[in-house]
Amino acid sequence: MQIVLATHNVHKVSELGAILSAAVEGLELLGYDGPEPVEDGTSYLENALIKARAAFAHTGLPSMADDSGIAVEILGGSPGIFSARWAGGRDNIANRRLLLAQLRDVVEEHRAAAFVCTIALVGPDGEASFTGIWPGRVAFEEQGEHGFGYDPVFIPEGFEVTAAELDPEVKNSMSHRALALEQLATYLNAIAN
Amino acid sequence: MQIVLATHNVHKVSELGAILSAAVEGLELLGYDGPEPVEDGTSYLENALIKARAAFAHTGLPSMADDSGIAVEILGGSPGIFSARWAGGRDNIANRRLLLAQLRDVVEEHRAAAFVCTIALVGPDGEASFTGIWPGRVAFEEQGEHGFGYDPVFIPEGFEVTAAELDPEVKNSMSHRALALEQLATYLNAIAN
Repeated sequence: MQIVLATHNVHKVSELGAILSAAVEGLELLGYDGPEPVEDGTSYLENALIKARAAFAHTGLPSMADDSGIAVEILGGSPGIFSARWAGGRDNIANRRLLLAQLRDVVEEHRAAAFVCTIALVGPDGEASFTGIWPGRVAFEEQGEHGFGYDPVFIPEGFEVTAAELDPEVKNSMSHRALALEQLATYLNAIAN
Repeated sequence: MQIVLATHNVHKVSELGAILSAAVEGLELLGYDGPEPVEDGTSYLENALIKARAAFAHTGLPSMADDSGIAVEILGGSPGIFSARWAGGRDNIANRRLLLAQLRDVVEEHRAAAFVCTIALVGPDGEASFTGIWPGRVAFEEQGEHGFGYDPVFIPEGFEVTAAELDPEVKNSMSHRALALEQLATYLNAIAN
């Protein structure tokens, strides 16, 4: 089975492709270089659907897309769908610095947060979606060299280190993205049989 | 009756003093130059109480403080209590620019917002609080020269111009702060009789 991953990020295609093809026999994840729609949805799901629908419309092949972010409780769930451009542009360093500055005076007990990932799958047979949530809290400063996005400022529940300090294999076994991919793989295996 | 306004902003003292003394006979609003506590509350009310309690503890006189902000629906109520330092520092221009950049792809129907102001009054006889809400939406660009804070990017319900384009008298008759002050004045007049 071929599935288009609706992103221009070839690194992401090879990373997710390796995970998914290990979990789903005969699956091939394809890249996408067609038009990218404006992500003007009001939720992770809407944005993932917008991207997956655009790729399906352009390629005619089953297409998937993910939308993810960090939801901070005292910010009412923000940055949320605005996580990637929280500081105004697509600059992860600026995004993290801004979040830490906004929460500067917030004590640890009020720094609860969660990483959220929603994957949408759109094909000739319909649409499906899968969401993974990784709870934790926002750190007071950046720590760690692994990972990307908000990993260096996110301390997962049960740990005293950030997601960027975790061994990538540990992270990839429990992250929001891993949980969503796991559900997707289960679904793909079920419909293949 | 003398009430301390728990702010180092003398402009604010004279502005609110004029409004309140017009509404409450014999009221004198005093400035404050004592210690300023860390505003680490998790709501407008908690922050207003923190400031008013600190001023009451320092002066022994009835003290009031306000906390206000802009709550954007699609941001889950953020910037909220973080409005004044949304971009990381206390820079209104940067705060407004950041909010507009974050909402760049958000269509008009999803730009609902409200200005919120909570006033806390703390004295020997106890504590009271008053909240005013001014509904509207976030504009797509700055407009207008009046006002301050988020006024140039906030279009009040029933208008097609920003709060910074309104005649200051119009704004001061209907704003979140005006509504909260009106409740405070009613309360002060009631306890004076």
